[in-house]
Amino acid sequence: MAVTLKDVAERAGVSRSAVSRTFTDGASVSDKMRRKVEKAARELGYSPNALASSLTTGRTKLIGLVSNNFHNPIFLEVFDLFTRGLQDRGLRPLLVNLSDETEPENSVRMLRQYSVDGVVVASSTLPPEFAKAFRDAGVPVVHSFGRSSSSPAVHVVGIDNMECGRMAARSLMARGYQRVGFMGGPITATSTQDRHAGFMAEMAQHPGIQTTDSFASAYSFDAGRTEMLRLLQNDPAEAYFCGDDVLSIGALSAIRDTGLRVPQDIGIIGLNDMEMSGWEYINLTTIHQPIRQIVASSIECMVAMLDEPDRYPEARIFPCTVIERGTLRAL
Amino acid sequence: MAVTLKDVAERAGVSRSAVSRTFTDGASVSDKMRRKVEKAARELGYSPNALASSLTTGRTKLIGLVSNNFHNPIFLEVFDLFTRGLQDRGLRPLLVNLSDETEPENSVRMLRQYSVDGVVVASSTLPPEFAKAFRDAGVPVVHSFGRSSSSPAVHVVGIDNMECGRMAARSLMARGYQRVGFMGGPITATSTQDRHAGFMAEMAQHPGIQTTDSFASAYSFDAGRTEMLRLLQNDPAEAYFCGDDVLSIGALSAIRDTGLRVPQDIGIIGLNDMEMSGWEYINLTTIHQPIRQIVASSIECMVAMLDEPDRYPEARIFPCTVIERGTLRAL
Repeated sequence: MAVTLKDVAERAGVSRSAVSRTFTDGASVSDKMRRKVEKAARELGYSPNALASSLTTGRTKLIGLVSNNFHNPIFLEVFDLFTRGLQDRGLRPLLVNLSDETEPENSVRMLRQYSVDGVVVASSTLPPEFAKAFRDAGVPVVHSFGRSSSSPAVHVVGIDNMECGRMAARSLMARGYQRVGFMGGPITATSTQDRHAGFMAEMAQHPGIQTTDSFASAYSFDAGRTEMLRLLQNDPAEAYFCGDDVLSIGALSAIRDTGLRVPQDIGIIGLNDMEMSGWEYINLTTIHQPIRQIVASSIECMVAMLDEPDRYPEARIFPCTVIERGTLRAL
Repeated sequence: MAVTLKDVAERAGVSRSAVSRTFTDGASVSDKMRRKVEKAARELGYSPNALASSLTTGRTKLIGLVSNNFHNPIFLEVFDLFTRGLQDRGLRPLLVNLSDETEPENSVRMLRQYSVDGVVVASSTLPPEFAKAFRDAGVPVVHSFGRSSSSPAVHVVGIDNMECGRMAARSLMARGYQRVGFMGGPITATSTQDRHAGFMAEMAQHPGIQTTDSFASAYSFDAGRTEMLRLLQNDPAEAYFCGDDVLSIGALSAIRDTGLRVPQDIGIIGLNDMEMSGWEYINLTTIHQPIRQIVASSIECMVAMLDEPDRYPEARIFPCTVIERGTLRAL
């Protein structure tokens, strides 16, 4: 049987409240009392229960980590960074998979049941309503990879996807492509909408260049491959900005299977620079999204909100850079 | 402020215990009492707190999901299946990243603090001591992808890695390769040891065939690529059984970069059949590990143990099959 706080109190000959205070960060307890309690706890092999102590402190140290795309390899990196970063601060990630969920209310109800101290929404495709629903429920929330905004409704940490779209267009123009295409992720995602808007806005500066756009059904290999196979059937562009790396890898697969060469026949630029994009025979030219910094900043922002839940919301936007590899013709 | 159980009790004019019993699965409460409590709860917008109610029920419905390899894409599939499967049963995964952890005691202490109802160790590379440490701490534990055994110390759900090694060797023999190699993962992992032992045992039946073995430093792309680049420097074998798919993909990258062709110059067979292995330009011949079934069975086993913590440990072993794709010469 587990040793309880009551057992320790009896052994030490002190009140339960004294034991509780000894194991509560910042609670007042005399040195003499602390020594007594710690001795009894040691003798009995007692370790304070984070959940029981949460009833005193109001803190569970649980952070909901909410995501919805388990078919995009970049999320393995994201989960790795979040779990390590939270653990380093004594916080624990409760992983929530919203792949099939469309109602923000359901996830709010679930996470409230667990009295999470905060929620990180780690997704560029979940609608902003999810993050707002947590905020409205009074839970500190950070939307990592959320939409850049000059008037954020919740804390957002991520990139300026409009600017990334412009950057991709400029990269294609600098290489002299005459017919270019945008092949995006799902059109319902704000990340897709913004990358598309930025790309098209930049291309509008180049009226002589033929520009097309289309959208895949998801940020996944299969969706990228399917959409590119469709594009290849009817006079494809010379180069595409694919909405992200996993779409790009699917598109590359379709292009190579059709017997076309990359970058000689068709060029591709992606977005994210996930680990796999640097693998030698993928070797994808892409736009680097600073995942590590975004995750670290998201955790810092969450930790700050735990102490100050009413913090004024801010958008933390990180710059991106083009990583030159082998899927666009040389500059 | 959150509505508490006490508020509901006062509103309904009943005891706190009656409210608690109303929201506890299986607890006895009259229909009349239940109606009264549910009405008050509805009026106040009360939703029972899973953690607070755990003090009554002794159940938190939290399951520790412990893993250590966030560089192997198969774990994204594993996390997806576990989080969905646990959520479907009203359980919640507390994700624990042991990438840097070597002491089982630390993870036991951490998970005890959270009073998890059980622990799933999802790893073929964490030493068996981790699963045993949870068992010794009195926590129901299932080791998914753990070592097959006829006398399991804890519940194990996975495959017979020895048999997989034999299966890989037989596949290479059936194709007439005369010089074959085992290129495993880290030699400290029981999965590596067993795959190696099975492969070498089968090859011992073919004394005329030249057989070599070596080990990569991790189950990762980089480790597979590095090890294969080393092997290519000095009279490589005609075909390799690579310890798993991500190692195989690293090895394929090394082979192709060296200007050799697959399968004409060197053949590769992997293990896992992760999603990516079917991607058209990877197209890896591999041994299918039934991940979906292993995860489903692990969850069933965990759920059974929640009701019967002293269940006699069992090993649930699933058969594997060779998936023919493009990286071995034709039969």
